[in-house]
Amino acid sequence: MKLWGSRLQKSTNGLMERFNASIGFDRRLWAADVQGSMAYARALERAGLITAEERDVLLRGLEMVRAEFAEGRFQIQPTDEDIHTAVERRLVELVGQVGGKLHTGRSRNDQAATDVRLYMLDKIASLREALINLQRAIVEKAEAHLGVIMPGYTHLQPAQPVLFSHWLLSYFWMLERDRERLDEVEKRTSTLPLGSGALAGHALGIDRQFLAQQLGFARLAENSMDAVSDRDHIIEFLAWAALLQVHLSRLAEDLITWSSAEFGFVELDDAYATGSSLMPQKKNPDSLELLRGKTGRLIGHLVTLLTVTKGLPSTYNKDLQEDKEPLFDAVDTLELALPVAAGVIATLKVHPRRMAEALSDEMLATDLADYLVRRGVPFRRSHHLVGQVVRRASEQGVPLRELPLDEFKEVAEEFGEDVYQVFDFRRSVEARDSYGGTATQAVRRQLAKAREILNGPTPLGR
Amino acid sequence: MKLWGSRLQKSTNGLMERFNASIGFDRRLWAADVQGSMAYARALERAGLITAEERDVLLRGLEMVRAEFAEGRFQIQPTDEDIHTAVERRLVELVGQVGGKLHTGRSRNDQAATDVRLYMLDKIASLREALINLQRAIVEKAEAHLGVIMPGYTHLQPAQPVLFSHWLLSYFWMLERDRERLDEVEKRTSTLPLGSGALAGHALGIDRQFLAQQLGFARLAENSMDAVSDRDHIIEFLAWAALLQVHLSRLAEDLITWSSAEFGFVELDDAYATGSSLMPQKKNPDSLELLRGKTGRLIGHLVTLLTVTKGLPSTYNKDLQEDKEPLFDAVDTLELALPVAAGVIATLKVHPRRMAEALSDEMLATDLADYLVRRGVPFRRSHHLVGQVVRRASEQGVPLRELPLDEFKEVAEEFGEDVYQVFDFRRSVEARDSYGGTATQAVRRQLAKAREILNGPTPLGR
Amino acid sequence: MKLWGSRLQKSTNGLMERFNASIGFDRRLWAADVQGSMAYARALERAGLITAEERDVLLRGLEMVRAEFAEGRFQIQPTDEDIHTAVERRLVELVGQVGGKLHTGRSRNDQAATDVRLYMLDKIASLREALINLQRAIVEKAEAHLGVIMPGYTHLQPAQPVLFSHWLLSYFWMLERDRERLDEVEKRTSTLPLGSGALAGHALGIDRQFLAQQLGFARLAENSMDAVSDRDHIIEFLAWAALLQVHLSRLAEDLITWSSAEFGFVELDDAYATGSSLMPQKKNPDSLELLRGKTGRLIGHLVTLLTVTKGLPSTYNKDLQEDKEPLFDAVDTLELALPVAAGVIATLKVHPRRMAEALSDEMLATDLADYLVRRGVPFRRSHHLVGQVVRRASEQGVPLRELPLDEFKEVAEEFGEDVYQVFDFRRSVEARDSYGGTATQAVRRQLAKAREILNGPTPLGR
Amino acid sequence: MKLWGSRLQKSTNGLMERFNASIGFDRRLWAADVQGSMAYARALERAGLITAEERDVLLRGLEMVRAEFAEGRFQIQPTDEDIHTAVERRLVELVGQVGGKLHTGRSRNDQAATDVRLYMLDKIASLREALINLQRAIVEKAEAHLGVIMPGYTHLQPAQPVLFSHWLLSYFWMLERDRERLDEVEKRTSTLPLGSGALAGHALGIDRQFLAQQLGFARLAENSMDAVSDRDHIIEFLAWAALLQVHLSRLAEDLITWSSAEFGFVELDDAYATGSSLMPQKKNPDSLELLRGKTGRLIGHLVTLLTVTKGLPSTYNKDLQEDKEPLFDAVDTLELALPVAAGVIATLKVHPRRMAEALSDEMLATDLADYLVRRGVPFRRSHHLVGQVVRRASEQGVPLRELPLDEFKEVAEEFGEDVYQVFDFRRSVEARDSYGGTATQAVRRQLAKAREILNGPTPLGR
Repeated sequence: MKLWGSRLQKSTNGLMERFNASIGFDRRLWAADVQGSMAYARALERAGLITAEERDVLLRGLEMVRAEFAEGRFQIQPTDEDIHTAVERRLVELVGQVGGKLHTGRSRNDQAATDVRLYMLDKIASLREALINLQRAIVEKAEAHLGVIMPGYTHLQPAQPVLFSHWLLSYFWMLERDRERLDEVEKRTSTLPLGSGALAGHALGIDRQFLAQQLGFARLAENSMDAVSDRDHIIEFLAWAALLQVHLSRLAEDLITWSSAEFGFVELDDAYATGSSLMPQKKNPDSLELLRGKTGRLIGHLVTLLTVTKGLPSTYNKDLQEDKEPLFDAVDTLELALPVAAGVIATLKVHPRRMAEALSDEMLATDLADYLVRRGVPFRRSHHLVGQVVRRASEQGVPLRELPLDEFKEVAEEFGEDVYQVFDFRRSVEARDSYGGTATQAVRRQLAKAREILNGPTPLGR
Repeated sequence: MKLWGSRLQKSTNGLMERFNASIGFDRRLWAADVQGSMAYARALERAGLITAEERDVLLRGLEMVRAEFAEGRFQIQPTDEDIHTAVERRLVELVGQVGGKLHTGRSRNDQAATDVRLYMLDKIASLREALINLQRAIVEKAEAHLGVIMPGYTHLQPAQPVLFSHWLLSYFWMLERDRERLDEVEKRTSTLPLGSGALAGHALGIDRQFLAQQLGFARLAENSMDAVSDRDHIIEFLAWAALLQVHLSRLAEDLITWSSAEFGFVELDDAYATGSSLMPQKKNPDSLELLRGKTGRLIGHLVTLLTVTKGLPSTYNKDLQEDKEPLFDAVDTLELALPVAAGVIATLKVHPRRMAEALSDEMLATDLADYLVRRGVPFRRSHHLVGQVVRRASEQGVPLRELPLDEFKEVAEEFGEDVYQVFDFRRSVEARDSYGGTATQAVRRQLAKAREILNGPTPLGR
Repeated sequence: MKLWGSRLQKSTNGLMERFNASIGFDRRLWAADVQGSMAYARALERAGLITAEERDVLLRGLEMVRAEFAEGRFQIQPTDEDIHTAVERRLVELVGQVGGKLHTGRSRNDQAATDVRLYMLDKIASLREALINLQRAIVEKAEAHLGVIMPGYTHLQPAQPVLFSHWLLSYFWMLERDRERLDEVEKRTSTLPLGSGALAGHALGIDRQFLAQQLGFARLAENSMDAVSDRDHIIEFLAWAALLQVHLSRLAEDLITWSSAEFGFVELDDAYATGSSLMPQKKNPDSLELLRGKTGRLIGHLVTLLTVTKGLPSTYNKDLQEDKEPLFDAVDTLELALPVAAGVIATLKVHPRRMAEALSDEMLATDLADYLVRRGVPFRRSHHLVGQVVRRASEQGVPLRELPLDEFKEVAEEFGEDVYQVFDFRRSVEARDSYGGTATQAVRRQLAKAREILNGPTPLGR
Repeated sequence: MKLWGSRLQKSTNGLMERFNASIGFDRRLWAADVQGSMAYARALERAGLITAEERDVLLRGLEMVRAEFAEGRFQIQPTDEDIHTAVERRLVELVGQVGGKLHTGRSRNDQAATDVRLYMLDKIASLREALINLQRAIVEKAEAHLGVIMPGYTHLQPAQPVLFSHWLLSYFWMLERDRERLDEVEKRTSTLPLGSGALAGHALGIDRQFLAQQLGFARLAENSMDAVSDRDHIIEFLAWAALLQVHLSRLAEDLITWSSAEFGFVELDDAYATGSSLMPQKKNPDSLELLRGKTGRLIGHLVTLLTVTKGLPSTYNKDLQEDKEPLFDAVDTLELALPVAAGVIATLKVHPRRMAEALSDEMLATDLADYLVRRGVPFRRSHHLVGQVVRRASEQGVPLRELPLDEFKEVAEEFGEDVYQVFDFRRSVEARDSYGGTATQAVRRQLAKAREILNGPTPLGR
């Protein structure tokens, strides 16, 4: 007996429909689909393919469809394979056969590509806003704690004293690069595929420039075969999202470590931690762990779409339907991650005392070497001499500042009385006043520039 | 004025709750959660921590919870952060304060880890079934078309004639490796974390061996700190899924190419293709393109979880909550992909005539070289001589079989009258009767072994 | 007895040294390292930290080091852990203790970060050139074959006739986006970290603006803690490389399919294929398969660095040493892939006759629908009617153009005598004269724009 | 003037050769290639395709080739495209035209596939050894410090006291799963492709079973088309390597955190850290950071090969040449990472005092809840009550153990005098004597089982 009888066939078809359908996730494109269709109706009329009356009927019908979606009244039907089918089906129900003219010269390939770009342009704008809010929270926090000194680490080992605000602002600049990149993604996303037909362009005199103006696109796709299968902007967006989340994961890692009992430098606000009724003193930094963990998801999404497009034949292939879920999930993730990160920063408690306690004289070794350099000792030798001094202090079990002067002098004649002035953490910080350094003055310059960026005009008419 | 006023604070908290909550996706673990809790209630009674009556109350309550879920009556509440909270909350509503005893000595860490394993064991069993069904469809199709000869390709260039069934069975063996690997994933998934507490084990005398028996686990986790954060089995499952889908993508690629008008070797059943009302002759192989495209998704999921766990501190960290969505989506994907692939194969139309037309004499060059080798010509020289023959035929614009004997002899004396017997595609196929070769007899041996595997007993008591 | 005796200890130390050392791969940074050090020597003198004489000694010494490398005479020593150590060690050998002043105020963290950026800026320039050469090869080929018509495919199924040049130019625009993105990567790469010290900035009055001018950087890093661990530009470069290679893989996939015996549309030049002495007629498109296969490598490298930086603490951690090998391999890969792709295109043989044979009347279904639309039939209905016509022709086993007029009229009254004019592939192509369409005139517009871009000035002073 | 003149053509050909050649990396397969060829020569003689004398000439020649490689005397020629060509070329030089018989019935496809498997079987054996050495180092360290108590963390927050040895052994079990998986990879790697020809099998009566015996393979590939393009075992190996490295990265993360000045729980041996002459007290845990960072590389390699094989047509395609570099680099990485990890563990200094200082009474909250549970309080309520107690102590600024009894009793009547016995970290540890728990007795059981595994026989005849 054959496995694949007629009964099974039927249920398999049901599986195939589920395998094929995209309405489950592309329904969120409804606003873009209606918007695109409205512009298209206007273009049809301009091309003389429909009358002004027909155009108005279509526009009114589309407005009704939009309202049904906006008010949660739209009913998806089992036969609605995707959002484009659903909107057109409903439009015909509402306005009759003239609805069947809307698709003239349009293919689902250029339509779907346009919808996704409209959706992305909308989301890019709101994510930019969320990104700026996070940058703003960082700047405000950095301003509020400008005097606080903490250990700066490399390899998670204490290295040199730095301002807490300097550390915090390092994330401002990572995010500023993310913002710059987002503008670039936006620029390329703002390229209109509509009017490219299924792959070959269209033959009906529709004015693509007019469509671009109506929909606010900055450029026209230059080649119809490229237009219907270009997914670069989604890949770029996912690469952007992954790198942004990497930055958030580094911020999270720092703060998780510093929230530990052993470091104790910072404390999360209750709103961003979870406790247990059993151990009320234990604050789990769930918000930060999720900010870190979600990086995996975003890198995964990037890999997904790169892999989907690898080795794909020209123009549209159904594989490309796989572009949407990673995109949507990336948007959803960042729409939460960015404000959560901003909230964490804005509400973070800082413990300057714990930070100060973690400073130690050895962290001034570089300052001691600079002291010698200023006295003419070649850097490599000064480096070596300071090492000897540190070792001496360590062997005698005293902090550097308590090592007697003759011990210093035994190591190098160049040491004088004034060497003890080196043992001042604030002085060490303030000495690093180079551009981009940790001195208060240099950090103020950073803050001023950051403020200027936040307040300033931004590209692409923001 | 501060950005982060009390109003914003409130809405941010709402965001944080959404960021943190897992109920949206872990609700599908309800059956596993109830099952685990029932076993745990029995273990509590055995340890003397609750009475037999209390145990029975808990079991009845859990049974009611299960029924509510099964019948779609269970109401998730806004405060139900995850499925474990939801089940326990409802249990207490149904049976009162004794419900508060269920969690004795159990932590959400070991509980959640156990639930996911129970879920996976269930899904592994059904996916194995689906995988076997696909293997079966392949075997049946290969048996049904055993006589059909087609070009075998390397580099997508025609190389040697092979049996269509031989080509098809090559996928049987890929899938057989997948099946073997799935058994191994199952073996490690069948390790019980329950009884590991939050990280340190428990102190209440609960019998973990009893729990394992109740829940059908083959092994106990050996170390409580490992137990609560081990996600190896999910990573293994995702690696398994990705590689399986790579196999399906190769099958899809072959069939997409062969479904093209230019090849025309096979034709998809209407159920697995989409047409358009405009171009009814055009059958888009959507099912195959999705089988190919979904590989991106599964590779992405694997990357996600590997990245999440990279550099994570010991034991449970909230990052690990990110394990579930990739797992669930991988299961969902394969639950459709496997039967769709089986349906495609079972209903595929094969066009032997188009295949035969694509055969050409040059594909017998290897046979010609073997002919010389059997006459004592060293392989490298025979290789070279055949090249000369092929070039001659090509220059004269005739198929090899029409090249006059003296032309053959001019190239090499070893050619005799019987050389023309070489130009027989079936003979070429049948000559390759080595173990694993394409001769009918060798393919029958493959089929017999494949049947034996499909009918035979399988590891782990299947 | 302990496993870890003193003997093992020693060999393990050897392993650790190998594990740790980067000289094996970072030696290729020698030119950048010398260049950076020369600028640094000048800056030291300007800051009064060394004398003009000392500066000149350093410069002469560095010039000697450069020459040794350039002429292949430089001897790496076993103790040279990385390129920076090697250069400084040799400098001291050549010029004596003044060499020990070169590192004053500089850390390996800011030095290494600067070197990689200098290397990248150099490679970005040469890769841009290679990219432009590939674009140029495409434009020239498209111009040379402007009249050739071929089937346009979606889902690898024939859809509509298009110009071969239109297809080819679709890759021009993908590459043009790649070029645009490369400019953006370059912009951010051109940010100077030097002068950031180990993490906190420096205290010695070195003029970072001067350094930037000397080394040709457009910007200064704004924050020293960010500066020493920023790897965004490398990740961006790898994302750029991966997407570019995805484009090349799609081009390769098209051409591999079209080089098959069954399609026969194009033929690779012998230089880009490999044959065998046995089957001289068989041309394996190795170049294209490698262009496709290398995509895996570049996506892998991107994943590598994203994963390395995920969850990394602030500032420099040794994990970041893992940034170089993916970068270098990506550069090496593209330095071959781009000219190979250009060579493939430039030497490709095109077979217009095979392309023409693959055209069929059903590919004009859209034109037939447009015909009805122009006669006032709503698009959805015209779509449906054409479907009926195609089915009729198919049932009668005749091409569409041989279907009698009354058959057309039975389907729809709107069909007239002039319907037969539709069955002209060139006319179909020329009708698609919309912006970005496949008509010759529209393709000429593309070509003109492409030429303009290739000849025009480019950002960043190129 | 054309860009692609004859001069450029030539240099492009040079590029293509470099693009195509694999000798740069596959030369390391020399031993496997010679071994495979020796077995093949014997099989040819058995099949009567060569004489016993010819076989002996071939074997002697191959032995000479092997010796040249082993002694570093083998000269790669510019025309040696890959290792197989190189070996055969040299063989013919050494033994004359009989060398040209060696390849009879063999294709580079089945030959290369066999060589890689032989290489892998060899490396799997040595990596297993290295893995076991790491497990052994863990067991020895755990035994040596069995009495040491430290804080156990979840979310990097102190949760409950655990044995240091318990923590350390959690890695033993991760590695034990890795070892189990490695055996499974080995099992499938031990499948012989040789005798599958280019894709269709061979026609010359060569006994594949004999070949398998000669070369020590456990199984024969069942289908020749699958055999020449199966890369599953390499993907499996890379997935294995990635997951193993994830485990090492978690170990590294723990130890990096604990090596910080603030934690101070452990100290790396000098051999595994790097210091600076400037800051001799600063020990950068480079070994651990590299163990963590190299995870990116191994995940990247896995992605590479999965992506390469996605959507690849059946049988051999040149894309598959990309399989070797990720494999070789993964082997090289682990050959260093595993002994370095073992060395780190073996030489690690443990600071029990710092660990003890980090314990605090709140970490006994679970014990306090268990105390109430044993007195009949339902778990959820006991949980809640303990929370109140902890909060009281915190408000009064005293450790729990100093809270007066009446305060306890105000919270819950169930508290008695004996509550103070709870405040004993060792007692807490010892109470968790469940299977897999942290009590000394349970850890001893783990150690015994671990020892048994390390000493026991292992699968596949090890």
